Amino acid sequence: MKTAILGAGCVGGGLLHILDESGVAQAARIVEREGSLCTDPRVTHDINEVLRDGGIEAVAEAIGGVGAAYEYVLAALKCGKHVVTANKQLVAERGAELHAAAQKSGAALLFSAACGGGIPFLRELAAAARYDDVLSLGGILNGTANYILDLMQQGGSFEHALAEAQALGYAEADPSADIDGHDTARKCALGCAVAFGELPAQSSILMEGIRYITAEDVRELASRGLCCRLTAYAERREGGLFACVQPELFTLDSAPAAVRQNYNRAWYYLRYGGLFALTGQGAGALPTGGAMARDLCDIMAGTRTMLAQGCRSAAADGDKEYKYYIRVSGEGTEYTARISAREMHRRAKELRGQGKEVFFAALDE
Amino acid sequence: MKTAILGAGCVGGGLLHILDESGVAQAARIVEREGSLCTDPRVTHDINEVLRDGGIEAVAEAIGGVGAAYEYVLAALKCGKHVVTANKQLVAERGAELHAAAQKSGAALLFSAACGGGIPFLRELAAAARYDDVLSLGGILNGTANYILDLMQQGGSFEHALAEAQALGYAEADPSADIDGHDTARKCALGCAVAFGELPAQSSILMEGIRYITAEDVRELASRGLCCRLTAYAERREGGLFACVQPELFTLDSAPAAVRQNYNRAWYYLRYGGLFALTGQGAGALPTGGAMARDLCDIMAGTRTMLAQGCRSAAADGDKEYKYYIRVSGEGTEYTARISAREMHRRAKELRGQGKEVFFAALDE
Repeated sequence: MKTAILGAGCVGGGLLHILDESGVAQAARIVEREGSLCTDPRVTHDINEVLRDGGIEAVAEAIGGVGAAYEYVLAALKCGKHVVTANKQLVAERGAELHAAAQKSGAALLFSAACGGGIPFLRELAAAARYDDVLSLGGILNGTANYILDLMQQGGSFEHALAEAQALGYAEADPSADIDGHDTARKCALGCAVAFGELPAQSSILMEGIRYITAEDVRELASRGLCCRLTAYAERREGGLFACVQPELFTLDSAPAAVRQNYNRAWYYLRYGGLFALTGQGAGALPTGGAMARDLCDIMAGTRTMLAQGCRSAAADGDKEYKYYIRVSGEGTEYTARISAREMHRRAKELRGQGKEVFFAALDE
Repeated sequence: MKTAILGAGCVGGGLLHILDESGVAQAARIVEREGSLCTDPRVTHDINEVLRDGGIEAVAEAIGGVGAAYEYVLAALKCGKHVVTANKQLVAERGAELHAAAQKSGAALLFSAACGGGIPFLRELAAAARYDDVLSLGGILNGTANYILDLMQQGGSFEHALAEAQALGYAEADPSADIDGHDTARKCALGCAVAFGELPAQSSILMEGIRYITAEDVRELASRGLCCRLTAYAERREGGLFACVQPELFTLDSAPAAVRQNYNRAWYYLRYGGLFALTGQGAGALPTGGAMARDLCDIMAGTRTMLAQGCRSAAADGDKEYKYYIRVSGEGTEYTARISAREMHRRAKELRGQGKEVFFAALDE
């Protein structure tokens, strides 16, 4: 299958390498922006060369963001070209529209690389949603945040751990997407779309990151046999969709506690099948590029969508109760009874508005 | 897709329930042996009614063993009917022949339910083997053995833990397949077929079970921060295929140690993608029946084989070094330097031939 790779940076370059080595699909063209240093003879700066080329059946988008990536992907789908993408922001923000365009033209739209790098989380979630009911899903979906929390577990401050993550290239210069939960929330939204056919608006996902955790919190929690992970959780109940990103506490002998460094662990719970969890490298050129190659193979084998339940835009306005560990500056720490997640997140914002420092983490027991 | 279920016992009954509830495929006929108590009007005792019915496109085999199951599956494939099966013994012993029959008639042969219950291990291994190189694979593939080891971890003898597993229905009256490693070895062989295109003869897989572990071993290992799991490991090197089932030691904060009760944890290591691990219920009517439903969905979507590398019968005659914990009656315990697995397994047999009791477990560090 002749394929054009849009953006030959980290992930696109990984895919290019895999396609050239394995030959599972032919990387026929590479679309790079003007001024790109890529000297591959397949490079073009004009997307129209790809769109007009009837021999190119598929487009692999690895540009990122929702500017050119959105424009090119939508145009490709409208031309009936299959699309694979690793772009979680694009699918989280424009998934319903892109799905509709793909359905209309009969083109495939696969994005298993957009959540968990090479981990086949969305791929298996999509397979399960065909014959089973997904009751809930979630997990550790951001490797940078996990790297920071794992390093803090071995002693040291948040600032030190963040600097290490930046030095290793895991965290961006502006680390907000990773440490404040935006990246995890986008991946959670994709999980909801695949599992429930409902793509929650980002603003409706309860979201708290790990920016406020301190070495003292880590020590206090460790003294109780607990460690902290940044997790997503989503479920669809009668009351509506609930989707939440927050620091969560686990016992030291648990499976989430065994997720070290920048690994991810995504899980889903099925009515028939029970609980499944998938662990692996949640990012990186070759794992993520490999996931895009996997999606291309699936297209060649006949797969057209991961959204068998459709893709409706939705608001995640449900709620769920957790116990919480809370530390408020000047007020010490507290372990609460089970309280509403929505109320906990609201209260933290309120306290911060009063100039207080707040860290909280959920305990689901 | 009109489907006949062969054997409506535990797993077949689970599949029947899922198909009837979800409607993803039509359970048109049920083949049960004479004297079956199943009163469903779809029951027949004559496989020929299924084979002769041109409307039935697929057969879901859940009889078990290699008698009638082998005969019926081979006949169905020769008629061009697609086959899904949860029968690890059948595929481990006759996989090459069945694969050839499926290739010849163009029928599908899928068996993702045969390893790890509902865990999509073989399914993802097959997907990865299309575009990546599987370097090695393995894991905790037998829930009964894991249940016994996990219970012993909490104190108590092997005999007590085995009796508990039998009382819960996890272990058979004759528990040999689970505790001596045969079941794990069969699943390991399926992994080799999917990953490498080579189906190792069962007799060539190095195999040691958990029959000889004692409460004293568990305590001694725990004092060093270690716990024991029964694992499979396979890799294909230049020297040939290495496949091994043996007790293996892990630190208490590791992911394998966090696999509790009767759960499974299968993993594979890819050249591009790195390490992936999948955890879940490795058995049970609904998880395993669900995996068969998943295979039926894949057939409807166009999938025909999990054996893209083919399926050659092979001998696993490679070797690999591990450190070992060894206890020999009258000689105490020892932690070895790295030694050959083949030599370790041979020496244990030799010592047992001299009437000694031996327990050993590998440490891969």
